[in-house]
Amino acid sequence: MPESTLEFGFTLKARDGMARRGTLTTAWGKVETPVFMPVGTAATVKGMMPESLASTGASIILANTYHLMLRPGAERVARLGGVRKMMGWDGPLLTDSGGFQVMSLGPLRKLDEDGVTFKSHLDGSQHRLTPERSTEIQYLLDATITMAFDECTPFPATKSVAAESMALSMRWAKRSRVAYQPRTGYGQFGIVQGSIFSDLRAESVAALEDIDFEGYAVGGLAVGEGQEAMFETLEATTPLMEDRKPRYLMGVGKPSDLVGGVARGIDMFDCVLPTRSGRTGQGFTRRGPVNLKNARHAEDPRPLDEACNCPVCTRFSRAYIHHLFKAEEVLSLMLLSWHNIYYYQDLMREMQRAIDAGRFVDFEASFHAMQAQGDIDPL
Amino acid sequence: MPESTLEFGFTLKARDGMARRGTLTTAWGKVETPVFMPVGTAATVKGMMPESLASTGASIILANTYHLMLRPGAERVARLGGVRKMMGWDGPLLTDSGGFQVMSLGPLRKLDEDGVTFKSHLDGSQHRLTPERSTEIQYLLDATITMAFDECTPFPATKSVAAESMALSMRWAKRSRVAYQPRTGYGQFGIVQGSIFSDLRAESVAALEDIDFEGYAVGGLAVGEGQEAMFETLEATTPLMEDRKPRYLMGVGKPSDLVGGVARGIDMFDCVLPTRSGRTGQGFTRRGPVNLKNARHAEDPRPLDEACNCPVCTRFSRAYIHHLFKAEEVLSLMLLSWHNIYYYQDLMREMQRAIDAGRFVDFEASFHAMQAQGDIDPL
Repeated sequence: MPESTLEFGFTLKARDGMARRGTLTTAWGKVETPVFMPVGTAATVKGMMPESLASTGASIILANTYHLMLRPGAERVARLGGVRKMMGWDGPLLTDSGGFQVMSLGPLRKLDEDGVTFKSHLDGSQHRLTPERSTEIQYLLDATITMAFDECTPFPATKSVAAESMALSMRWAKRSRVAYQPRTGYGQFGIVQGSIFSDLRAESVAALEDIDFEGYAVGGLAVGEGQEAMFETLEATTPLMEDRKPRYLMGVGKPSDLVGGVARGIDMFDCVLPTRSGRTGQGFTRRGPVNLKNARHAEDPRPLDEACNCPVCTRFSRAYIHHLFKAEEVLSLMLLSWHNIYYYQDLMREMQRAIDAGRFVDFEASFHAMQAQGDIDPL
Repeated sequence: MPESTLEFGFTLKARDGMARRGTLTTAWGKVETPVFMPVGTAATVKGMMPESLASTGASIILANTYHLMLRPGAERVARLGGVRKMMGWDGPLLTDSGGFQVMSLGPLRKLDEDGVTFKSHLDGSQHRLTPERSTEIQYLLDATITMAFDECTPFPATKSVAAESMALSMRWAKRSRVAYQPRTGYGQFGIVQGSIFSDLRAESVAALEDIDFEGYAVGGLAVGEGQEAMFETLEATTPLMEDRKPRYLMGVGKPSDLVGGVARGIDMFDCVLPTRSGRTGQGFTRRGPVNLKNARHAEDPRPLDEACNCPVCTRFSRAYIHHLFKAEEVLSLMLLSWHNIYYYQDLMREMQRAIDAGRFVDFEASFHAMQAQGDIDPL
């Protein structure tokens, strides 16, 4: 693949309270933050053509180490030129470390100091991930941003369990950093752990900054602790994180999670929610989520969100999308995934503008007021 | 919806042997013939955005009366502005009469002189189609081209059964014509029946021309008689059909069926094959069909068809499409349906050019020689 001469970096351009506006520069293009990264688990954002994805304003996407190492295999992806080339995505790509998915396997995995042995959910075959192998796989996938291999601490966890788990993740972070092969315009992020315990989070931040990554993620949240505890943990964590580096809240979230995350100093997010909801008939709107399968939409000629300029809302009615879901047509999920990703990108654009203009508090208030209105009345 | 002032009509521009080049003019645009119409059964060509469909060169599509009358219902579609408006398709639309699908229901349907009573495959509810109701439904769907209601004669049929069935279809054709409400730029086609019996086909052609439709279809083929018998029936039928009106071979077919159909004077085709094959992993190429699920493609970086300029072949490898099928990703069928429809449109464009240049016989020979080569060798 062609070499890039763009250096990896993060420029903070504006702030408004704790909220930040920045530009992340990578080998494969610039990313305006705060940013939402759509998830392309198996090297495809489900139901989206890469250019449709780009047309929503998505500027960086995520792919999953766990899924791709099992199928089609990291070495195979490398021979095909990496995930970006294979899937036709021109922008930067972030891969997770596989840690989160492997931990979710429960009894199918066994953890030791060196790493994790687990059985594939596809065929039961045995695999092993270590900080070194996870980092190597992400190199083979050609990840623009590589994540350190960590243990995602289960929730709830006692403080001593959380402390042990965090300490292991910090040892693994060090090994991940050693295993990382730097390339121009590429970077590696460490992951802050410590469950909901602020002193553990502080300890984790310090340990990672000692290692010195290109950016830092907050991990182990959105795992059942609830929005309030998540926000409290962020409030205890982000003020301790290096100001000049990007901050990424992993696996989050609902629109209100993104707004609250930005308010608490987060720059980057990823979540399967826009596409997963799109497949089940849930559309996100400025007035909250709407279930398009509901019979009330069967003859509604209005768009899903009248304020939305996406290719779905400008051309298709709620009635048509409802029909497509009833008929189990694949276009149903294509349209709703497209709209939902566009809505998420719109939300990020609105937050960027609000921070630029120093009116993030007003934005937050009007966002919540709109969401609280609920869906438009039936005709 | 806006009124059109374009008159419905067919202009024959060139011929080469029995093959014809024409332009079909409709309220919603011109159609260069010979033409292939992708099938949008339930008001969506499966897995395709309307603009993606248009970008392949598709200029007219088909929708199914049977499916749409059951879901979402013809009156509901009418309230939503018709199929074209509902699904965002700007070009002309042809609807079948429901006859073929209803006949396929077997024991679920009961035929009498007046029409057919049948049970929905969706919920078992009872419905009735008559020439009058089928024509009314197609009006409600806003079909640019309405098809006469007919009985698709089962194959094989004795001559007396075929004769009775054809005579019934001719009585129904007359009633369909009476029920038809003309609109500027819209038309109605009669359907020639008679199984594989050339004298019955001749009788059917004469009966329909007495009624005087805007175009004529050859029905009751591609129902198990085989390509040879289909071609023989065409050879006995198309020379009898009015020269100045379009001829449509319903439900056909494979690429070689289209080439043979054009060679025998057919102007219009429709078939679910490009999209149905796309969903099962079969891609059409200049060198014949290819099964992308086959392991031989797992690391093949080449496009499906190296001579194809579609958005799939210019950007994605066989290896990636193979991976998408293995991972059961929805993008697999999106990509392959897109390519297949593009391939079919390319084939029609090549045939149009060959007829224009008076070299259709050469085209046919090179088409068959290429198809006979079989797929490219593995790397």
